[in-house]
Amino acid sequence: MSDVFEKVMELAKRRGFIWPTSECYGAVAGFIDYGPLGAMMKRRVENIWRDFYVIQEGYYEIECPTIGQEAIFVASGHVAGFADKMFQCPHCSEYFRADHVAEEYCFVNAGTMSADELEARLAHEKCPSCGEVLGKVEVFNFNLMFKTTIGPGSQRTGYLRPETAQGMFTDFPRLLRFYRDKLPFGAVQIGKSYRNEISPRQGMIRLREFTQAEAEIFVHPNEKNHPKFSRYAGYTMPLYTSDAQEKKGEAVAVSMKDAVQKGLIANEYVAYYLALTHQMLVAIGIRPDRLRFRQHMCNERAHYASDCWDAEVFSERFGWVETVGIADRTDYDLKAHAEHSGTDMSVFIQYGEPKKVQRRRIVPNMSVLGKQYRQKAKAIFAALEKAEPTPNGTDVTVDGETIHIPADLFEVRDEVVEVRGEDVVPHVIEPSYGIDRMCYAVLEQAYDEDTADGETRVVLRLSPAVAPVQVAIFPLMARDGLDTIAEEITHSLHARGILAEYDDSGAIGRRYRRQDEIGTPFAITVDYDSKEDRTVTIRDRDSMKQARISIADVPEIVCALVAGSRTFASLCK
Amino acid sequence: MSDVFEKVMELAKRRGFIWPTSECYGAVAGFIDYGPLGAMMKRRVENIWRDFYVIQEGYYEIECPTIGQEAIFVASGHVAGFADKMFQCPHCSEYFRADHVAEEYCFVNAGTMSADELEARLAHEKCPSCGEVLGKVEVFNFNLMFKTTIGPGSQRTGYLRPETAQGMFTDFPRLLRFYRDKLPFGAVQIGKSYRNEISPRQGMIRLREFTQAEAEIFVHPNEKNHPKFSRYAGYTMPLYTSDAQEKKGEAVAVSMKDAVQKGLIANEYVAYYLALTHQMLVAIGIRPDRLRFRQHMCNERAHYASDCWDAEVFSERFGWVETVGIADRTDYDLKAHAEHSGTDMSVFIQYGEPKKVQRRRIVPNMSVLGKQYRQKAKAIFAALEKAEPTPNGTDVTVDGETIHIPADLFEVRDEVVEVRGEDVVPHVIEPSYGIDRMCYAVLEQAYDEDTADGETRVVLRLSPAVAPVQVAIFPLMARDGLDTIAEEITHSLHARGILAEYDDSGAIGRRYRRQDEIGTPFAITVDYDSKEDRTVTIRDRDSMKQARISIADVPEIVCALVAGSRTFASLCK
Repeated sequence: MSDVFEKVMELAKRRGFIWPTSECYGAVAGFIDYGPLGAMMKRRVENIWRDFYVIQEGYYEIECPTIGQEAIFVASGHVAGFADKMFQCPHCSEYFRADHVAEEYCFVNAGTMSADELEARLAHEKCPSCGEVLGKVEVFNFNLMFKTTIGPGSQRTGYLRPETAQGMFTDFPRLLRFYRDKLPFGAVQIGKSYRNEISPRQGMIRLREFTQAEAEIFVHPNEKNHPKFSRYAGYTMPLYTSDAQEKKGEAVAVSMKDAVQKGLIANEYVAYYLALTHQMLVAIGIRPDRLRFRQHMCNERAHYASDCWDAEVFSERFGWVETVGIADRTDYDLKAHAEHSGTDMSVFIQYGEPKKVQRRRIVPNMSVLGKQYRQKAKAIFAALEKAEPTPNGTDVTVDGETIHIPADLFEVRDEVVEVRGEDVVPHVIEPSYGIDRMCYAVLEQAYDEDTADGETRVVLRLSPAVAPVQVAIFPLMARDGLDTIAEEITHSLHARGILAEYDDSGAIGRRYRRQDEIGTPFAITVDYDSKEDRTVTIRDRDSMKQARISIADVPEIVCALVAGSRTFASLCK
Repeated sequence: MSDVFEKVMELAKRRGFIWPTSECYGAVAGFIDYGPLGAMMKRRVENIWRDFYVIQEGYYEIECPTIGQEAIFVASGHVAGFADKMFQCPHCSEYFRADHVAEEYCFVNAGTMSADELEARLAHEKCPSCGEVLGKVEVFNFNLMFKTTIGPGSQRTGYLRPETAQGMFTDFPRLLRFYRDKLPFGAVQIGKSYRNEISPRQGMIRLREFTQAEAEIFVHPNEKNHPKFSRYAGYTMPLYTSDAQEKKGEAVAVSMKDAVQKGLIANEYVAYYLALTHQMLVAIGIRPDRLRFRQHMCNERAHYASDCWDAEVFSERFGWVETVGIADRTDYDLKAHAEHSGTDMSVFIQYGEPKKVQRRRIVPNMSVLGKQYRQKAKAIFAALEKAEPTPNGTDVTVDGETIHIPADLFEVRDEVVEVRGEDVVPHVIEPSYGIDRMCYAVLEQAYDEDTADGETRVVLRLSPAVAPVQVAIFPLMARDGLDTIAEEITHSLHARGILAEYDDSGAIGRRYRRQDEIGTPFAITVDYDSKEDRTVTIRDRDSMKQARISIADVPEIVCALVAGSRTFASLCK
């Protein structure tokens, strides 16, 4: 089934999971529509994410605009550095990512070549589109942020955010107050982010508009042991360390406790979110044998990250796909925003008990200095407080002018002062999830074909936790009161928040096939016996087994099956 | 309490409901951040909306990109017509909306004046910002869509969508197939929309980036009776008809059935969603006495809408604020997209039984025509089928050339044919909700002050359905095992999806005040008796009454109180 990508995307399009966007005008690459079933599945994935991060971890969600003012992205480095190298074919005018074409032509170190090197090498190669030898091409940086203007008169440049993270950083001072000035705390955001990709060609894997779920967890730089680490200390999963990659080794299963102790993972916080991520991806239906955690190599890691891992999901089509990134971003972001905005981004951490600290203080001889320097005296007093004294005096700078203050005009005192605590810029642990890639992986892995009633059956083996339609309700015939009973059952399930789909059209076999194809895990059939004994048949999508249950029990049983607190097998006894 | 706006916004900012966005760089007008409590409340409002539209009505949600290609908005009319008249003060360079300034200066018909008229009148008025007499100003149209470029090389213009609706229209052909080619059906979308307002100054009421929840319901043009109208036929609520507005009358309470019968509301579909909207706004906590439905006047209604109503919520600060719009958009949108895209946007409606239709058919004399016109003959045959015959023959146009075909070269036959059905372009009923305005209204109306323990108490009387924190858990002391019991209760509530907040800091009275201020409807206190008899005290925010309940019953009782299926009074017996 090597063409599972084509098969699952055809199904996704036909049945209303994923559609080309504004198709009637010619779809635009890098954008997709989630159709009725796809949007429902995506929302279930997002809500499972919230169960982990908002309910379990207790990190509140915030919601910032997708349009941000330029200053944010100057500070974050995106205005200067968020760019890909590109060139335009001089013959057919097509645009290309220079590093991607270089990779296709197997240039060594394609990803790290300079623009000049790329230009020189590409000149001899053929255009991937029109086939002409490229000749002289200009390789230049293309900033990947979508740009717009806020308000009239081109007054103000705005960018569509390239990640949700910056909102949590610029809100840090308010978040800190919300969490009553105590570390650690976290905030999360689920929402749209944007990257103006040069020529996206990989369906849901490389989108220009995509959904991110990001958590930013603010921790004390010296306290990177997670208070609840015991929850995942014994959790074992495949780690593909940078060391293993260098030695062309493979991913090896390690427990989180061992991984931290052996120094494979930088600290407990990173390890904790690696394990939580593994648990969550499995919960939405990713198969553990197609999931590994790959550490970034030194040269691949962002310069500010002290450790970074990707959760990679194996795709039949795309190979190992980076789906979640978990990084220790250190204090890079908060320091950058503090510097650019002039706003304090630190936390005052009180010591257990005040510390006595030796301090050297310069006490000016006020009267002499005052007479000698007159209007400048006040500024000199202030500058002296931070000056470095020598036996020959010291130099201070006032209004750009360096003034030498002789040693007899001040006194140097060594004092012991009590310090209650210190200002600390927190480090940030960031798990960042690509929701669209998760949805694609779920669909691809769920796609299956088997045999039912002697025919090939297409079935999406979606976890009940993410299946858009949770149960189908079929009256055997759309008459004789069977339809009424089926409708009543449907309503009783809606009242419990279960998405039940009533369907009375066509033969039962065809109705099963329709639901199998969209991954509906359970189907209930109302037949003539139902009128007599108030029972119905419930059928399991995967095993195709059936059980007879009381109508009165339907809501309870379906809720339990969907929540995973009960198995279908338990009904068959 | 006329300054409730200032009070509630101060509280909202301080406690983490609403924050200025990217405040450290100077907030940008027209954008807000939802802080931890605001985002939670907003999500609860959105989910209540989904309960009504997705679960109850059965209209699936879809998710389209926020960036759309230009062709969409050319067809929708936004590129040409989605603009406000503006001018710039020649003295201070400030930008203004011309109609708003004209209204401030009480020009008659300010909203419908032409640019020339506005220029002439404004010349004599003072700039609202610098106070100089404006003199010669240029009034021009400013398009309110945010513009950007998709991909490199300025190849493709993109706009941030001004409404979510267009996604449902461009997806109409696929939605129709999803719903198996049958009317009526609906699709909904909740997401960000954007309007590049000229100078927004009304906080959450006029945002440049805002959240819409829109439903587009596709119905047969001749079948505007809602199949479930009986649900709301007797629902009575205040209608402020265009007639009453003209006569300077007031809103009058009418039942939906009467309103349709008397022709106050155009049809059952519009009436049904007016009533549903009233029910939903009350469900999130809007007071019925501050809610009315105002019909658009003829000159105010979009030219394509056959009827349009606004749900208006009364604000202490802003007066009656349009919060929801409910319109019959007829076939305007689908026809526009069909025409611009060349895609069929109609539904084939099969008749109950085939109709016999008299048809006049032209049967060409093939052999003569063939000889006479040779290569052109085939095209002429085709053109003749649609031609209008006269006794002197007929004219057909082939490749731009008009050819006269004499009457003896064809025969006119009158036939009776069977027609199975017809192609119909559906009409669209659109309820469109402004989620941010709903959130503001909820906050403003919930704000209250009363007296507790002899002091002024600030309390947000939020409905338990939308309160961000649903229950607070206080150990009387953070020791002696009380904290452990309180933590266990907190976890048991998290497991049920209830947002319970554990708080052990400060005196109990202060903890109550903190929770009252953020609208937490219930608080549970664990005291020394709890260790003995496994009971706790539960307190009601509004009445401040208390009841003693068993720890084992806490999850069940809290869930029922939050869902509204049980009252607090029932615990006090």
